[in-house]
Order: sequence, then C-alpha cells, then structure tokens
Amino acid sequence: MKKKGMRSMKKVPYKIYLSEQEVPRHWYNMKAVMKNKPEPFLDPATLKPLPKEALKQILVSELVEQEYNSTDEYIEIPEGIRDFYRMTRPSPLIRAYYLEKELNTPAEIYYKFEGTNTSGSHKLNSAAAQVFYAKQQGLTKLTTETGAGQWGTALAMACAFYNLDLTVYMVKISARQKPYRKAVIETYGGKVIPSPSDTTEVGRKILEENPDTGGSLGCAISEALEVALQDENCRYVLGSVMDHVLLHQSIIGEETRIACEKYDIQPDVIIGCVGGGSNFGGLIAPFMGDKIQGKNNIHFIGVEPASCPTLTRGKFAYDFGDTGKMTPLIKMYTLGSGFIPSPNHAGGLRYHGMSPILSQLYHDGYFEARAVEQTKVFEAATTFARCEGILPAPESSHAIRVAIDEALKCKETGEKKTIIMGLTGTGYFDLTAYMSYNDGSMTDYIPTDEELEKGFESLPKV
Amino acid sequence: MKKKGMRSMKKVPYKIYLSEQEVPRHWYNMKAVMKNKPEPFLDPATLKPLPKEALKQILVSELVEQEYNSTDEYIEIPEGIRDFYRMTRPSPLIRAYYLEKELNTPAEIYYKFEGTNTSGSHKLNSAAAQVFYAKQQGLTKLTTETGAGQWGTALAMACAFYNLDLTVYMVKISARQKPYRKAVIETYGGKVIPSPSDTTEVGRKILEENPDTGGSLGCAISEALEVALQDENCRYVLGSVMDHVLLHQSIIGEETRIACEKYDIQPDVIIGCVGGGSNFGGLIAPFMGDKIQGKNNIHFIGVEPASCPTLTRGKFAYDFGDTGKMTPLIKMYTLGSGFIPSPNHAGGLRYHGMSPILSQLYHDGYFEARAVEQTKVFEAATTFARCEGILPAPESSHAIRVAIDEALKCKETGEKKTIIMGLTGTGYFDLTAYMSYNDGSMTDYIPTDEELEKGFESLPKV
Repeated sequence: MKKKGMRSMKKVPYKIYLSEQEVPRHWYNMKAVMKNKPEPFLDPATLKPLPKEALKQILVSELVEQEYNSTDEYIEIPEGIRDFYRMTRPSPLIRAYYLEKELNTPAEIYYKFEGTNTSGSHKLNSAAAQVFYAKQQGLTKLTTETGAGQWGTALAMACAFYNLDLTVYMVKISARQKPYRKAVIETYGGKVIPSPSDTTEVGRKILEENPDTGGSLGCAISEALEVALQDENCRYVLGSVMDHVLLHQSIIGEETRIACEKYDIQPDVIIGCVGGGSNFGGLIAPFMGDKIQGKNNIHFIGVEPASCPTLTRGKFAYDFGDTGKMTPLIKMYTLGSGFIPSPNHAGGLRYHGMSPILSQLYHDGYFEARAVEQTKVFEAATTFARCEGILPAPESSHAIRVAIDEALKCKETGEKKTIIMGLTGTGYFDLTAYMSYNDGSMTDYIPTDEELEKGFESLPKV
Repeated sequence: MKKKGMRSMKKVPYKIYLSEQEVPRHWYNMKAVMKNKPEPFLDPATLKPLPKEALKQILVSELVEQEYNSTDEYIEIPEGIRDFYRMTRPSPLIRAYYLEKELNTPAEIYYKFEGTNTSGSHKLNSAAAQVFYAKQQGLTKLTTETGAGQWGTALAMACAFYNLDLTVYMVKISARQKPYRKAVIETYGGKVIPSPSDTTEVGRKILEENPDTGGSLGCAISEALEVALQDENCRYVLGSVMDHVLLHQSIIGEETRIACEKYDIQPDVIIGCVGGGSNFGGLIAPFMGDKIQGKNNIHFIGVEPASCPTLTRGKFAYDFGDTGKMTPLIKMYTLGSGFIPSPNHAGGLRYHGMSPILSQLYHDGYFEARAVEQTKVFEAATTFARCEGILPAPESSHAIRVAIDEALKCKETGEKKTIIMGLTGTGYFDLTAYMSYNDGSMTDYIPTDEELEKGFESLPKV
C-alpha cells in the first residue's frame, strides 16, 4: 500500500471517465470471499432449502445460477451486455470540489454518479443484464412490478434494446400520481397495467373485495408472478435485494476501483444509501472483497431513512420478500413484511427487508449502518444541488447527508479523509418531495418501538 | 484536407469526452468572419441605430460589449466561467451506432449531447456566462422571464453558483402546468413569480383589465424589464436570439470541432433544431467560420417546426423581439411579433423571430432550413430513444428527424456521409407531449398563407 502522502502526486481531474479500454469486463462476486455466506432460501412450506430448479420456474435460469454462485469471485460480463453498457456507461467519478469549498473541509469528497442515463438511476445496470439473459434463454416476455417507477423505466429501456415484450404491473396509486413515469415506460414500448387489474385471477379477486383500492407493491408482485407462471416464454424479474442484482451492480464498484487505482485515490470512507441494497452492495463490492481479505480498512457506511430503519432497528431473521408472502423465505435484516413505512416518507428506500449479502456482512460487523431523518436529507440535497449543479434523488441524498456529516467531522478534527459516495440518481421525478421541503411542510417520522413490534409480529415462525 | 478514405484510421470511441487539457478556452465569434454582418439594432422611436449605452441600462454591460463585437474571432472564456463549465462540461460527442444499425444506413451519425446536466439543456452554457459577468459588474440581482422553464432553471443554477438573487417571471399558465419546473428553480434559490403579477405596474394593469388571464411571454418580459429598470443593482437577462448568447453557445461547436479533429471525423452534414437559434448557432459556429472562409463545404441544416416556420416561410425584416413591442428593432427572419403558434404545438421552438446572425447567414445562402411536422418528429424521437437509450427533448427531436431522413437517403444512394446533429436536451419535463403521441391524439398543423399574412401585418413599418 502506498503512503497517504503520495496520493495526490497525480493530478486528479474534476470528472474521471474511464476509456473504453479501461472499463471493467467482469462483475465482482463478494460472496466468493465472504467468510460466512448468506443462508440459503427456504421453501416456506417445508422450511427446507429451495432447489434451484424451483426458482427457475419463475426466474430466468442464468440469473438463478448467479444467485446460487458463491464460488467465482469474478464473473465475465457477456459481450452482449457490454454492448448495452457501452451506451449507458461508464459513469463518471466526480470530485466534489465545490461542495468541499462550501463546507470548508480538509476532506476530499468524490461521488460516483449513476444518474446520467434516461432511467435516472443505477437500475439500468441490472436491467440490461437480466433482459440479455432472458433473451439468451429464448424467452420472449418479461413481467415485473414497479412502485416509484425507476425499475420499470430501466427494464423498459432494456427490453426495447433487446426486443422483448414487457408488462409492468404498476401500483395503481403510483400510476395515477406519476403519469410521467408511466409515459416513459410506454415510450420505450413497455405495457403498463395499473394494479390491481382484471388481467389476473389475484387482481380480480382483490378488485371484487375492494374495488376502490389504490393497490400495493405486494399485490403488483402477485399479479406479475401469476402472469409469468402461466406462460413458458415468460419470466418474472426484479430489481433489488437478490444476490444476482448486487452482482450486476458491482459494475459501479469496479469502475470506481479502477478510477481510484488510476489516480492513486485511496478511500477512507465509502458511503451509499440502502433500500434493498443493490446500489450500496454494488458500489462497495470490490472494496469490501479486499477488506474481507485484510487488504484495506475502509469504513463503509450504509445510510437508511429513520422512518424505515431496516438495518439499525430490524431483526436478522428469515422473512418473506414481499407483503403477499409468495416468495421463498430469505435470511435478512427485516422489519417484518407487514411493516408499512409512514406515508410522510418521500422517495424510495421503503423496503422492509435487505439484501441477504449485505445483511450477513452487517451482522458480521463489516460496515456501519446509520439512519437519518428526511428533512436533514433534503437540506443536504439542496446544498449539494446548489454547489455541484446536480439535483439528486431523495434516495441518493441519504448518502450525501452522511458524506457532509463526515466531511464536517474532518473539519473539526483536521483529518484529510478521502470520502467516496454513491450518487445513485437524479430527482427529476421526485419534485413533489422537493416542493414540500421548499415550502416547509415536510415532516420527519421515527417509528416507535411499539410500531416496530407490530411489524415483527408478521415474521414467520422458522 | 485529408482524403475521405483516411478518416477511419483512428478508432473512434462510442462516446468522446475531451480531457480537461483539451477543452476549449475560448468562444468562437462567427460575426468576425461574416462577409455581411447582421444589421444594427434600431431604436423604434427614431429608427436610428441604438447606441450601446442605451442597452446597458437594461442588460449587463459586458454582454452588450459582446453583442456589438464583430471584430474578434476568438474571445477568451474567463477562468471564473471555466470553473462552472468544469462542472457541467464537456458534453459527450456520441456515435449513434445503434441508430445506424436500426436504419441500416452506410452513414455515420454522431450527436453532441447537451442534456446530461440538471437544467436538461444547453441553456446553462450561456446562463453561467451571463451571471458571471453580472457578478463581475457588481450587480446583485437579475430578472428574466421563462415560458417552458428551461432557461429559468439554467439561470437559477448559475445564480446559485455565483450567489446572485434571481427573480423569474414565469408565464402563469406554465407555472400552473409545470409545477416541477417551478420547484427546480426554487430549489436552486430562484424566486418564481407567476406572470402577470401585482409586483409590477404593467402586471397590475393587465390584471385589472383581465384578472383571469393565463399570461404570455410578452407580458412576462415586460414585468422582468420593469423590475430591472427600477433597480441599479439589477439587470435583465435572456437566453436565446441575441448575438452574445450564440457566442457563449459556441462552446458546443468548439468542443465538437476539437473532438472531430482528434479522431479525424470530417462532417459532411451538421444538423440542429432552431427556435431562437442559440443551440444551432453555437453548434455550427466554428464550422461555419471555416465555411465562410472557404475551408470546408459542410451542408448545414437548421430544422424548425412546420407550425412555426420562421426561416422557411418568414420575412427578413426589422421586427420587435417581443410581443409587447418593448425591445429595439432587430433585423431578422420573422413571422411578425403578433404571430401566435398553434396551441397543438408541443415543446419550444415557438418563437416568432430568429437570431440576427443566423438570419443573415441564411439570407446569404450559407445553410438550408427545413420545416418538419410534429408527429414525424415524435416518431423519430421514439426510434432514437429505443435505440440510443436517451429520451430526447421535443425540440432536439426536430434535428433527429432530419438526421434520420438524411441517413435514409444515404441508404438509397449508398453514400457514406458523416452526419453530426445537436441533441440539445432531454424530454423528462415534456412527457405530456409524449403521452399524446403514444395515445395517438397528437395532431399536425401547418399555418395557411392567410394566417401567416395576419402575423406579417404586425411588422413595424421601417
């Protein structure tokens, strides 16, 4: 390892873009070096580990293989996926000079910005891979659900590129509140069905019982699953939590690592927001691999909303991945699939569970989790926007909040730490949240212990 | 000049980003080499050329100097503006491989993409320069008007960076229909006042006569001007048409020229959309300078909507720049300041006039103008979005339409032309237009000769 004093020998440009020759040709699979691997999925009926074959009825076969692969540290990115990445990647690693100046901190702050593509987030990294493998398998159709709409947009873009049919079950209330997200998906040729709908048995049943419901993610998942199960040319895909999604997102971390090596940047702290965990897991992947192997001592911080505190106040237990309790049982940090985040909570990061890989790493003490309140998050977002000229997504702004906090600590202590944060996306479709922050009507919310207990009651007895 | 056959000797990457060392340090002033310079502004009262000093009461002094500068071919970009550009530029020059493949054309298509910044368009290039010079002059406040909101957003971002107060008079109906644009401006600290308002004399007068009006650009300009005139620390700024705006936008063309030289790309055709002309004028600037001096024979095409056909069906005449007839008289192509584009017309490019520089160049035969209908434009936009993964702004999509048409001609003739087009921005805030295209309700409109005659009747007698 180089000495600290040497790191600024090479002039670091404001924005680092890797050249086509430098971009990574493999993903990084943290599981291969983890000392304690994530626990296997369980069949909820038998409580026995779920065989691959059962999952392949629902999911794309190669993705199931990746989900179960805990031996290969590097997995080659097929040429057909690199074709897509060539269009949307590399993303820049940007030195936050103006934010540093505003904070008057000795810390060096960098952000890896995933928001320059039309989906406006990192979701495209996994969408491209998933659709490519579906096509390779000879499938012609995919289904998924979407709430906020970022995953649906990314998937529609990938399906347009690889020429597959896509049906997106969009939570009815979201489809109404976010007509623009729906419009983008449709422009890319995706079919959007507000859920619950009369296109599925489960949808018709729900509508019969409750004709005026605005829908829920749990219901949308159920409808998407039902359609996928009934058509052998169709599979269900999903955009976070799963190990294979983290694998695809490791492209973020690999690019960051290569850029750091090129310019002798040695991160002391790496910060990302965590919802299902795919962005944070992808960003830290190769660095965490090194940490597990004793090659660095980076301080990783996963940031979650105080209103949905999965890591900081959840339990490490087997739980369902969905509110409808249709998935296998997953060992993860969870607030219980029955936990419902406060309606005052803006943006994403409202998932009750957490990536099994991150859950295991957190349980084993490899990273810190920190919960932050949303008005403080939007305060940080606004400061960042005005300094750095990028309007960040509310989700990404959780990482900004903690990066600013860490940089201000450095100001107090005089430490010249190097901080890298993941800026997962832009806030162009989240402006109602900014409006409520701007007009002072945004409030914070921290669930009481009693409220959390109610969520834990939904945990299955395993 | 190199022979055609040599141009592909150097491997061209999918995306060309210039390094910090390569980015231009000057703007290009086409006027310095134009054989016929644009005619001077006239004072509408006296019909005599307007002295600089009169304009400096309203506009930032250095911008007026630039407006009147027709001698210096290269104008250095001050360090303080390059600080801002370092954040938002360079923009990539991207090879449209996937679009070429979709069209099965022998043509090579490149696009210069100005939409990766938060304003979502090229407007920021001039906003940064204008605010910098205002600050240098010791001014503390700026006013402007905005219709669609791109200019207002860009200016708010620049004012946040340089720390100046900004008041944006936003056409009332736009402020209501585009609350998100308003929210972005406010997040950057800009004050948005729906116009007409009770904050100005002209606004109060209009409200008294017509309390329910949705406002107009002409009225918003008048309010912004009134405020600027009453405060010696305040000036009025504007985002297109003027020579100094084209000068700042020449950064687009300079970057493109440097990238072309680096990779031996020799454009045969350069295409841009034209509203007020700032993007097209900026993109072609250095190439046009060479053409005027006999150093190339590039075919330039400015594309405008058939519903607002300023170049293709307008008159080359002195006219007011605004519907309120408060500006000096400008010699330009115009449909008459009384011309009102059809309400079915989506997006920008609805200005009755045209940049005086472009008007003169067009009059002298240096470029072709082409008018296209909007359903064809959105058809091209959708094709582009699905192939290239970027959802283009409706304005930019006019250039895409003609680039596709030219590439398809090459397919017929077998010519391997090199086409460069300006992709000025993204369509994230224009999704209602995409929605009407997607659901088939979008219609075309071409004004009749009689309707145009009505607009011409508003031309002043000079």
